[in-house]
Amino acid sequence: MGDVKRRVPEAGGHLKLCYAKESYMNSGKLHLVPLGGLGEFGMNCMAMRWGDDIVVIDAGMMFPESELLGVDIVVPDISYLIENRERVRAIVLTHGHEDHIGALPWIVAELNVPVWGTEFTLAYVEDKLEEHGLLDSADLREIRPGDRFKIGPFTIDPIQVTHSLVDCVSLAIHTPLGVVLHTGDFKVDPTPTDNRLFNLHAFAEYGKEGVLALLQDSTNVERRGYTPSERAVRGKFDEVFACAGGRIFISCFSSSIHRIKLAVEMAWEHGRKVAFIGRSMISSSEIAEDLGYLDIADGLLIHAGELKNLVPGKVCVLISGTQGEPMSALSRAAVDNHKHARIEKGDTVVLSSRIIPGNEKAIYRMVDHLFRREAHVIYEDSSTPPVHVSGHGSQEELKLIINLVKPKYFIPIHGEYRQLKLHAQLAASMHGSVGTVMLIESGDILEFDELGARKAGRVNVGRICIDSGSRTDVVEDLVIKDRRHLSEDGFVLPIIAINKLTGRVEISPEIVTRGFSGGENGFLDSVRNVVVETLGQSSEEERADYGVIKEKIRAELKRYISKQTQKRPLIMPVILEI
Amino acid sequence: MGDVKRRVPEAGGHLKLCYAKESYMNSGKLHLVPLGGLGEFGMNCMAMRWGDDIVVIDAGMMFPESELLGVDIVVPDISYLIENRERVRAIVLTHGHEDHIGALPWIVAELNVPVWGTEFTLAYVEDKLEEHGLLDSADLREIRPGDRFKIGPFTIDPIQVTHSLVDCVSLAIHTPLGVVLHTGDFKVDPTPTDNRLFNLHAFAEYGKEGVLALLQDSTNVERRGYTPSERAVRGKFDEVFACAGGRIFISCFSSSIHRIKLAVEMAWEHGRKVAFIGRSMISSSEIAEDLGYLDIADGLLIHAGELKNLVPGKVCVLISGTQGEPMSALSRAAVDNHKHARIEKGDTVVLSSRIIPGNEKAIYRMVDHLFRREAHVIYEDSSTPPVHVSGHGSQEELKLIINLVKPKYFIPIHGEYRQLKLHAQLAASMHGSVGTVMLIESGDILEFDELGARKAGRVNVGRICIDSGSRTDVVEDLVIKDRRHLSEDGFVLPIIAINKLTGRVEISPEIVTRGFSGGENGFLDSVRNVVVETLGQSSEEERADYGVIKEKIRAELKRYISKQTQKRPLIMPVILEI
Repeated sequence: MGDVKRRVPEAGGHLKLCYAKESYMNSGKLHLVPLGGLGEFGMNCMAMRWGDDIVVIDAGMMFPESELLGVDIVVPDISYLIENRERVRAIVLTHGHEDHIGALPWIVAELNVPVWGTEFTLAYVEDKLEEHGLLDSADLREIRPGDRFKIGPFTIDPIQVTHSLVDCVSLAIHTPLGVVLHTGDFKVDPTPTDNRLFNLHAFAEYGKEGVLALLQDSTNVERRGYTPSERAVRGKFDEVFACAGGRIFISCFSSSIHRIKLAVEMAWEHGRKVAFIGRSMISSSEIAEDLGYLDIADGLLIHAGELKNLVPGKVCVLISGTQGEPMSALSRAAVDNHKHARIEKGDTVVLSSRIIPGNEKAIYRMVDHLFRREAHVIYEDSSTPPVHVSGHGSQEELKLIINLVKPKYFIPIHGEYRQLKLHAQLAASMHGSVGTVMLIESGDILEFDELGARKAGRVNVGRICIDSGSRTDVVEDLVIKDRRHLSEDGFVLPIIAINKLTGRVEISPEIVTRGFSGGENGFLDSVRNVVVETLGQSSEEERADYGVIKEKIRAELKRYISKQTQKRPLIMPVILEI
Repeated sequence: MGDVKRRVPEAGGHLKLCYAKESYMNSGKLHLVPLGGLGEFGMNCMAMRWGDDIVVIDAGMMFPESELLGVDIVVPDISYLIENRERVRAIVLTHGHEDHIGALPWIVAELNVPVWGTEFTLAYVEDKLEEHGLLDSADLREIRPGDRFKIGPFTIDPIQVTHSLVDCVSLAIHTPLGVVLHTGDFKVDPTPTDNRLFNLHAFAEYGKEGVLALLQDSTNVERRGYTPSERAVRGKFDEVFACAGGRIFISCFSSSIHRIKLAVEMAWEHGRKVAFIGRSMISSSEIAEDLGYLDIADGLLIHAGELKNLVPGKVCVLISGTQGEPMSALSRAAVDNHKHARIEKGDTVVLSSRIIPGNEKAIYRMVDHLFRREAHVIYEDSSTPPVHVSGHGSQEELKLIINLVKPKYFIPIHGEYRQLKLHAQLAASMHGSVGTVMLIESGDILEFDELGARKAGRVNVGRICIDSGSRTDVVEDLVIKDRRHLSEDGFVLPIIAINKLTGRVEISPEIVTRGFSGGENGFLDSVRNVVVETLGQSSEEERADYGVIKEKIRAELKRYISKQTQKRPLIMPVILEI
């Protein structure tokens, strides 16, 4: 894990602030300013401000929509934080998923404030910052559930919760106006595989003492009932291990530590050796083992290179690539193009994850290849026991937390607009448990004072597109627009050589195209003619003003090409002075 | 419907071929040649050949995957049919969905053979051919369930089946070797809204007489149990009409005639006027009304322009755009940009369709807008009663048909590879009902003779990409590859002016880029320097050979740009002789 600066909060652990006592400071205003994640999926980030102190909760990224060509990740616009640079005291993380920590490298590069998180969360953060060469300068501080710590006027109490990842916390933030409870991501799992229980008692106690505002995860608000426990997957794994004759390949998100733990346990019970394949799977399981979330019996683990020496019935491979990513280990194994992972007739492949919308085609293409290799493939088909369960609480869990916390104000977080709205409706119907429901979106300032809460203006928010090839390479809108244009109909580039002495066009224009289809034989000649005619019909002054003549040529060509071919390639006249 | 050539088969309706009698012709071979749809989703098309006669069943298209930039639709490569041009006798259609008729314009333009289909199917075909200016020359022939017709050595018996569309048939094709039963798309709906029942008796009878081969739809083979009846949606519509105070907007696929019929009936029962909005919705409902599939009471229908004159509680709007297509009526209404469809607080919007994979983001973006307009939105959330049901039979229905038909040979059709494979496994487990299971894919020749069946070689198949801007515009692979390249990192175009008399580079190279981001200030200067240096280090001979010098510049720039920016734009040196 390297020699990272980490400090456990000094006195915080034993600090106990009394709700009533805080009221002497009640002359100020508390601002909640969501910078991302409210009205969009991912990119969760919220600023909380009291006077001259700002603390930021989570720093997530989102994966781009397919229209954002050449963009790898999207991070929130943090102009608000940068404008208040000297006020930002810390970033506090609820857990280690990408939509909560993925923007850290870009934010920390701008604002190198202390980053607080649980042990496991920080392990992921370290990996990420190291990748970006930012680890040495980072100030990482470890927090533990139940150990309170103080940042400026805020005292923060991390509460242990359950989720698809381990070591996740909700945050009870004691402010001069009262407690703000930020759930982070959670489900209420009564039987987590690591036996670290959801701390219902803490929620109950805060509810009894009084909570100013509850900010609750909206991800699964459209689902009725309860989300099944992580342990529900065990039933399916039981079937798999009982029936499989050949190798067992299990693919899940590399952060699904619960799932990895389950697979490792069952492999041990069934006398199968375990190999990890895929960079993220290896690094994630190492972190989990280092931190005690994963017990691997001596001799159980083998290197992937040893697989070929073992009989198929004696191995279980944990392999990354559940979303059919083209370069992932599983995708490559599916087309028999992986050094160590050979999938053959009689082997079983388990895809223990959900299908992220947009990935269906890639996943099913991979599954088809696995079928062609005559593997037995198990993927989500809504049968029970399930091969995957969600990490987010469904309606009954959301209601349970609301019942326990009984907040004066309820604010739905983490969701697209419809989810925030449905969540607001759900809470509003819970008379007796909820005071006032406030529906806000990224960029809104929600202001609290002694009199109550209200929207009080907006700050600049937005999406910054990153091309991850280079660390800080922001892709501008115009470039994306050009790429979209280019991706549809390609380009047509007329090149006109003008003698800078005489101002005359000396040679026939050159027409260069790529990605453009359309037009009969001789089409390029006719395009050239259009350029020549346009030049001929222009006055000397027009020809001398390259801006004007370029625009004239562009307009004429656009009309001509669109009429002839119904296409709209990018047209970009180039004038060469010779 | 225009003055189209349509003929009802003359004698066919009363022809009854005896299975035993046909055996005198059993000296030849029967070929089944799937040209699309076996191993891929969509593009269903199958050739059936006996000696010098070929009949083609269905002529479908598929929607392109998102990587196929600028491609609107994909149709099957029909080289096999074109090579056997003089043998192709007819195209017979099972029903009117795009994945069964969508390639007709491209196929009919090449091979203008008679096209046979039911009345409703042909109505869709007429629309489609008219759009492509092919209707006048087309030879369309109407078929009716139960009325047999003869094409060369084949006698074809269309059997009425149920599906999400109306007037669908399976085809029992009597060949000299026995009956081949092609199910088309179907579900076994015991209570279709048009009361035209699935003809189980016909399947039973063929089963008793003996069937050579059953070709069965694999679309829903991954689903257990039974697909609910179209009528199951009525429960949800009941709730909607009972509770809705404001306007009701219902969006479904325009071909979902059952769904449209249900909505119209319920509007009438609840005293709401009906308006159709959206080109496809209007044209499809007109066809359905013309052909008697839709009864609209006098005075029930209003023009969309009248909506503003009626109180919200008295209208029901059927509107197209269930997939969030950006230019569709519903998408435009969702952002208050439709002339007639105004959606306001208290209105209800019902999305009565499935989410086609890949469309999630667009659909949820539209739903979010509807939520912002404070509409009540009902979409598929796996609650009961369902707001949408599938049109394809699930496992129990597939088994039922297999039990009835008891084929000697079973061939799964219509599905991706995993679905064909699962379907083959399902059938293979049905001892007593199935003789031999043959798993074939598009391009395989499945040969039958007196001794049995076997794969006997392959024909050329593939996907032809069409840019629907122009009628027959095939987009070549190379163009798509270029577009993909352009869409990721844009392009960099060095333009070098060479004096054709002296062979010297007279002016500094021009560097043109678009869609390319990366590189610091002065980056273009350094790119120019690379070009100049490359030119300087080249011999006179190299500079004289434009192919060589272009390739040298391309290679050097690629190396330089990739090192500096980690990007791989399309690099295309242009040499201008001056």
